[in-house]
Amino acid sequence: MDKHAQTGWLQNLVNRRSVLATATVGLAVPAAMTLGAAAPGGSTAQAQTGVVKKITMYVEDLPNGLLGYGLEPGKASIPGPLLEIYEGDTLEITLVNKTDERVSIHPHGVDYSVESDGSPLNASFNGPNETRVYTWRSREMASTGHGRLYTPGSAGYWHYHDHANGTDHGTGGLARGLYGGLIVRRRGDVLPDRTFVAVLNDQFINHKKAPDTPMFEANLGQRVEWLAIAHGTSLHTFHLHAHRWADNRTGYLEGPADPSPIIDIKDLNPGSSFGFQVIAGQGVGPGAWMYHCHVQSHSDTGMAGIFLVRNADGSMPPGAQEAIDRFHGHVHASAPSAADTPRTDESHAHHN
Amino acid sequence: MDKHAQTGWLQNLVNRRSVLATATVGLAVPAAMTLGAAAPGGSTAQAQTGVVKKITMYVEDLPNGLLGYGLEPGKASIPGPLLEIYEGDTLEITLVNKTDERVSIHPHGVDYSVESDGSPLNASFNGPNETRVYTWRSREMASTGHGRLYTPGSAGYWHYHDHANGTDHGTGGLARGLYGGLIVRRRGDVLPDRTFVAVLNDQFINHKKAPDTPMFEANLGQRVEWLAIAHGTSLHTFHLHAHRWADNRTGYLEGPADPSPIIDIKDLNPGSSFGFQVIAGQGVGPGAWMYHCHVQSHSDTGMAGIFLVRNADGSMPPGAQEAIDRFHGHVHASAPSAADTPRTDESHAHHN
Amino acid sequence: MDKHAQTGWLQNLVNRRSVLATATVGLAVPAAMTLGAAAPGGSTAQAQTGVVKKITMYVEDLPNGLLGYGLEPGKASIPGPLLEIYEGDTLEITLVNKTDERVSIHPHGVDYSVESDGSPLNASFNGPNETRVYTWRSREMASTGHGRLYTPGSAGYWHYHDHANGTDHGTGGLARGLYGGLIVRRRGDVLPDRTFVAVLNDQFINHKKAPDTPMFEANLGQRVEWLAIAHGTSLHTFHLHAHRWADNRTGYLEGPADPSPIIDIKDLNPGSSFGFQVIAGQGVGPGAWMYHCHVQSHSDTGMAGIFLVRNADGSMPPGAQEAIDRFHGHVHASAPSAADTPRTDESHAHHN
Repeated sequence: MDKHAQTGWLQNLVNRRSVLATATVGLAVPAAMTLGAAAPGGSTAQAQTGVVKKITMYVEDLPNGLLGYGLEPGKASIPGPLLEIYEGDTLEITLVNKTDERVSIHPHGVDYSVESDGSPLNASFNGPNETRVYTWRSREMASTGHGRLYTPGSAGYWHYHDHANGTDHGTGGLARGLYGGLIVRRRGDVLPDRTFVAVLNDQFINHKKAPDTPMFEANLGQRVEWLAIAHGTSLHTFHLHAHRWADNRTGYLEGPADPSPIIDIKDLNPGSSFGFQVIAGQGVGPGAWMYHCHVQSHSDTGMAGIFLVRNADGSMPPGAQEAIDRFHGHVHASAPSAADTPRTDESHAHHN
Repeated sequence: MDKHAQTGWLQNLVNRRSVLATATVGLAVPAAMTLGAAAPGGSTAQAQTGVVKKITMYVEDLPNGLLGYGLEPGKASIPGPLLEIYEGDTLEITLVNKTDERVSIHPHGVDYSVESDGSPLNASFNGPNETRVYTWRSREMASTGHGRLYTPGSAGYWHYHDHANGTDHGTGGLARGLYGGLIVRRRGDVLPDRTFVAVLNDQFINHKKAPDTPMFEANLGQRVEWLAIAHGTSLHTFHLHAHRWADNRTGYLEGPADPSPIIDIKDLNPGSSFGFQVIAGQGVGPGAWMYHCHVQSHSDTGMAGIFLVRNADGSMPPGAQEAIDRFHGHVHASAPSAADTPRTDESHAHHN
Repeated sequence: MDKHAQTGWLQNLVNRRSVLATATVGLAVPAAMTLGAAAPGGSTAQAQTGVVKKITMYVEDLPNGLLGYGLEPGKASIPGPLLEIYEGDTLEITLVNKTDERVSIHPHGVDYSVESDGSPLNASFNGPNETRVYTWRSREMASTGHGRLYTPGSAGYWHYHDHANGTDHGTGGLARGLYGGLIVRRRGDVLPDRTFVAVLNDQFINHKKAPDTPMFEANLGQRVEWLAIAHGTSLHTFHLHAHRWADNRTGYLEGPADPSPIIDIKDLNPGSSFGFQVIAGQGVGPGAWMYHCHVQSHSDTGMAGIFLVRNADGSMPPGAQEAIDRFHGHVHASAPSAADTPRTDESHAHHN
């Protein structure tokens, strides 16, 4: 683990409203206001239209050669802060480069002019210690004028990342931690109680391997939103135990005739993202549920973590602490062994 | 082929009703009854609600170090038996471990408590020669109370597999044959005449390479259901010649406005599954049609098989036997050769 | 670049109507007539039903051991010509093999008898210097008679390729350039102003690496159609900067309740294809926008190109020529470097 900084995975255990509270730092119009900070989980969004949000983000060096984005100096993290806006909003990001290397920020899913592309191709990056403003716009779906056809809006489970460090495609920045989640909501969408961001970046999740991968927590019955992102060069399949979702924009069926397949695993390959909402423990109860990459060599070498569904009152369900303890003593076999038998040892085979 | 047992691929050539007949062994309420054994292909399902089915499954050693699931002692196969239920049903599986290794059974798509997770994380596995009960529940879609949104039901083309042998993720069990298909039907779904299960597990299909891969058979016009599953570590793309389907829950369009793409190939990566129905030979006629992984190095080294569409009366169509003979004499080049010319030799280049 | 012929990438910069004009060579009923040659971009298709189109295609040797399909002798290209038909049409292709090797043509998405399968399995190929006729049919969706279910029609963003050269799966033919696009339109579909075909074949796009990859061009506001195809053995994710589409049959939402996710990147793995329409520069303005494989090692080694969105009047937008010049002087780092800094050199690191 020494090449990966001990940057707080706790920030991944995200309460939606605390994210919004964090995100409001430096905002002209606080996001928490536009999203309705007092709204209970399960409420629907009725934000005002076309807000311009101005934030400052910092790119900073982290230990062990890593890099991170943060909303305040000294607060860079991997992944970077989750950004949320509504369709129609504009996000104006003043990116302060606190490093002596070339970096940028490139979003998926939103509108930007060539000046905000974040690519060296368009000379859109921050040189060493430079500050640069990137503007991301969003929009609602609109009729094409051809029958029932609409051009898509911006709502989606997106992400942002460096596109300039190391190579013209940001391969260095990605390998070192410059990525984060971006959610664009459609008005009327159901709001979650909690949002989790899992970035599968080559053989790591949020730059960690088991048992140091994030433990995401919710109480039984809470509305939980997952945003899964991938970077690097490898094939991944994101699987969540005991929960499933519709393979569409939200994870919910849009009425009984929605033809979307129901899935509990989805391909998650470099540069891609998807998201969905589920009710924590619905139909299965509380417990320590695993999420992991289902590529066997990846799960075996540490691309796995725990989704802890507590009891509805927040207390620990029977067996969950034992499962967590077992996970932290987890031995990751590097190769399947036909003679394998149940193990109860607590050694950290290759995590020390 | 010596590392892969000669376990009967014939079981893959599955007539739906014979599967149900097999599956009824040990059932409190025979599946064939609940699905309507006399129903003709193309009928729709009108099963009773919320049946509890109790079955016993056995994990057994197979030749060459392989393992299999079976519904009776001595009947283990690779893949294991196809399990079918309806949304709302519960499947209670008494898993008898006839081996001296740790094994389990972990399903995709259905509901289970932590005790039935099948993972070492939750201490849910069979130790050597142990018997353990796993309970899988299912449910129908239900309104969320938010506008038109529904939480998904359990209907889908799923699968089950070991999650405890070799590693905590079942990598040993998967490599050795512990996997099978699981279909959860929605009431009202069209029933197929035949169901085929193809598991792409690293470089094998149902643990075989061409020309020993399963030959799936149907008569022209029969309603054929495919369940495709993947395991291991490799990228796959499942392609079926001369047939195509909607990329949604069933393979049929749900009315003329269903926006699903129509496809004849689909990514099939580790831990994933999908299914669809087609009418055998519709629009193209009978013949020996190929199904294969479209990753070139995979098809070239044996990830291919034949879907034999016979004439409507079950007789052999012109040219089909010749194609089958050709396939069995198929030379799989290990590398493309620019100087390649037509071959009629019958040698088994690397299958002997 | 010496192993890849200098076959005109300009043919990839396709104006729909010029494609149709080209495609009419040898047609019994000119395609341009059936599609309405005078129709403005954005019109919808009202072609007559069930046309039989007869074309002759040639397989020819190209420099450096490559092979290509063409609609006239001496005109073979990589990719081969884009073929377009309407649901209900039949395409009768007389394939003239001008090489002394075994080749064939195998389509995705359309109907064909075993004689037109294009596979050695069905003895469906051209021997050296042989001519053979392949017939592809198509059809509209049709009710199954079961509730609202329809069997799919043929409309889609498909492709064709060799299935006989090098190996029985055409691995040699694919590696050497024998592939092309096939679009089957549904009556009523919106017609594009321009169609671009991008084939990701192992580490190449249309058999080129950056900066020699195709530059696709359109004017701001034009309706642009992308057909993306993959071959070979590698994982790919196709990403287009500053544009996004619905992940469904057309790229447009089919009304406000269409549940399709909105995406700007999609997995594109061997044998697969997808397509979509976007309005060039909508919401983002003109400029040199990148399209690339988002697998970092692939974009870094040349799987990237430019989508040039000109001003509405066809003039060059500010900064675009500089971006193009920068791209042609692009240094593709073969490995990320933490110490990387902005570069302005014009050297061709590994393209000379």
